[in-house]
Amino acid sequence: MEVYAGVDVGGTNIVCGLVTSSGEVVYQIKRATEVSKGPDSVLEKIAAMIEEAAVAYAEQSGTGISVTAAGIGLPGFVDPEEGIARFAGNLGWRNLPAVQRLQARLNLPVYIDNDVRTYVFGEAMYGAGKGYKDVLGITVGTGIASAMVNDGALFYGFRNMSGELGHIVMEGLTDPCPCGLEGCLETFASASGMVRQAKKALRAGEPSILHSWFPGEKLEELSAADLSRAYDLDDPFAKLIMEKAGTLLGRALSYAVSMVSPELIIVGGGGALAGDRLLAPLKKELFSRILPDYRDQLKVVTALNNDDAGVTGSAMYAKQKHIAATK
Amino acid sequence: MEVYAGVDVGGTNIVCGLVTSSGEVVYQIKRATEVSKGPDSVLEKIAAMIEEAAVAYAEQSGTGISVTAAGIGLPGFVDPEEGIARFAGNLGWRNLPAVQRLQARLNLPVYIDNDVRTYVFGEAMYGAGKGYKDVLGITVGTGIASAMVNDGALFYGFRNMSGELGHIVMEGLTDPCPCGLEGCLETFASASGMVRQAKKALRAGEPSILHSWFPGEKLEELSAADLSRAYDLDDPFAKLIMEKAGTLLGRALSYAVSMVSPELIIVGGGGALAGDRLLAPLKKELFSRILPDYRDQLKVVTALNNDDAGVTGSAMYAKQKHIAATK
Repeated sequence: MEVYAGVDVGGTNIVCGLVTSSGEVVYQIKRATEVSKGPDSVLEKIAAMIEEAAVAYAEQSGTGISVTAAGIGLPGFVDPEEGIARFAGNLGWRNLPAVQRLQARLNLPVYIDNDVRTYVFGEAMYGAGKGYKDVLGITVGTGIASAMVNDGALFYGFRNMSGELGHIVMEGLTDPCPCGLEGCLETFASASGMVRQAKKALRAGEPSILHSWFPGEKLEELSAADLSRAYDLDDPFAKLIMEKAGTLLGRALSYAVSMVSPELIIVGGGGALAGDRLLAPLKKELFSRILPDYRDQLKVVTALNNDDAGVTGSAMYAKQKHIAATK
Repeated sequence: MEVYAGVDVGGTNIVCGLVTSSGEVVYQIKRATEVSKGPDSVLEKIAAMIEEAAVAYAEQSGTGISVTAAGIGLPGFVDPEEGIARFAGNLGWRNLPAVQRLQARLNLPVYIDNDVRTYVFGEAMYGAGKGYKDVLGITVGTGIASAMVNDGALFYGFRNMSGELGHIVMEGLTDPCPCGLEGCLETFASASGMVRQAKKALRAGEPSILHSWFPGEKLEELSAADLSRAYDLDDPFAKLIMEKAGTLLGRALSYAVSMVSPELIIVGGGGALAGDRLLAPLKKELFSRILPDYRDQLKVVTALNNDDAGVTGSAMYAKQKHIAATK
């Protein structure tokens, strides 16, 4: 049986899956990344996980399997053509020749790309975007990022730096962003942005049910899921925060739609768990700010395979690159 | 000698040129569009102009010439694959099978696309963008539109509706736009937008040298070039209008850069004539709102062949399509 390995590398965990050529994940394992052990250790772990998954799945299924190629989604700036992880802040990587190292270790064709691109590729081709030609995907989590798939091809831009939706500077936002700018979309509308804004306002005395859940120092533990819980109890403060975040997302997406005209927008990442709490204000703002020709056609949905899309996308991205390379 | 015909169809004039396969315009003619005579008359004029140019250039140069294919840049929504002019408000066209009609009449392969796309294609490949891989072009004239060329390929989006930069709704703008939205970028930052905003403020009594140039009812004759003239005499009002327009353009472009990461932005159309009067505030705003990684690389320039880019672009677009079709 021929499969592709798909690996999604995050700051906390590495997920490695075996994926059939039609995009079905047949086996999956997850391990702690252990960033502190350094790049060599993380690369070795990626390679070992691919081997482990292949052996375990062959045993479990009782069939011989062969891994045709491996695709790895990495955070940060990635150069897929040179096979180099240019910069990943949360991994502490800089100019790491990941493809060369992994290919030598695994004796397999290896392809890398930015993890948001591979995730959106998976969702666009095998998830909520199946059957759509022009897909814009955004991930709302610690930060906010985006990627585009048009006619089955990922969009890159100069130096592969497209998709920084989270660093659009929004009028009315003023908080500093770690990137050096002020008022970036993700300072408010990301999952961590919402939590940070909520904490700030709660500390300043804004009334909310959240005070009784997180009294005093406990407030540090507030998460985006807690905001959703409070929202569901009609807490006006939680509603205000989430509606403002959704509205800001919708506004930024209206800029994107006018530029690139997607047929479908997929909202993924942890923020997708907020569902209509974010999507309702997002859509309201978005559809009030785009040309009627867009409005009549555009759909906005949450990711279908939010948990698996990174693995599926990395594997199917490797399949696409491998087929193109061996043509 | 083998040439491509490039035609740029505007609401006022049609320009038709013969272009060598390396992008050099060797012959060019211009005629009034006479929109009021209807679509059939305009299509016949396009065909006749291509024939006329071919005959006249053959006579003038004393060489036999053959037109390999013709490319036509049309305003409005164009479906290049079906060869249909979907909607062009200023021509009064709707669902016109332009390619079928022109091919039957000319016995030549004919390709059509939106005129901003063909213009930006010309500038990106044979003008200011020569040698750059990821180019974003904008035209600032009656309206504002944009197009992208990546690795030599135009970007389309769903239903070919990408590039509506002029209809990004900007915070702080409130004027109604003919599109039905309010506060679109082009209500202020287009050439006609600047003129309209200037007239409104001058009528409300804003002091300016323009009052002495255009007293009373004469104000109706104010043009964007007059704003530039007043700007050059340090008229604070004209400076304010142009700086605000440039700032708004820069802000909208910062959204675009974060999404699609161009290496080069080309500013073309009538607005390019304003030069640094627009570009200085544009760049100041743009570069203050994008990630350092973009800032270090991105260049912003005015169009090189502003007058010819539409013709060159249409012809070379036809060449690209023709080569792909006959492969």
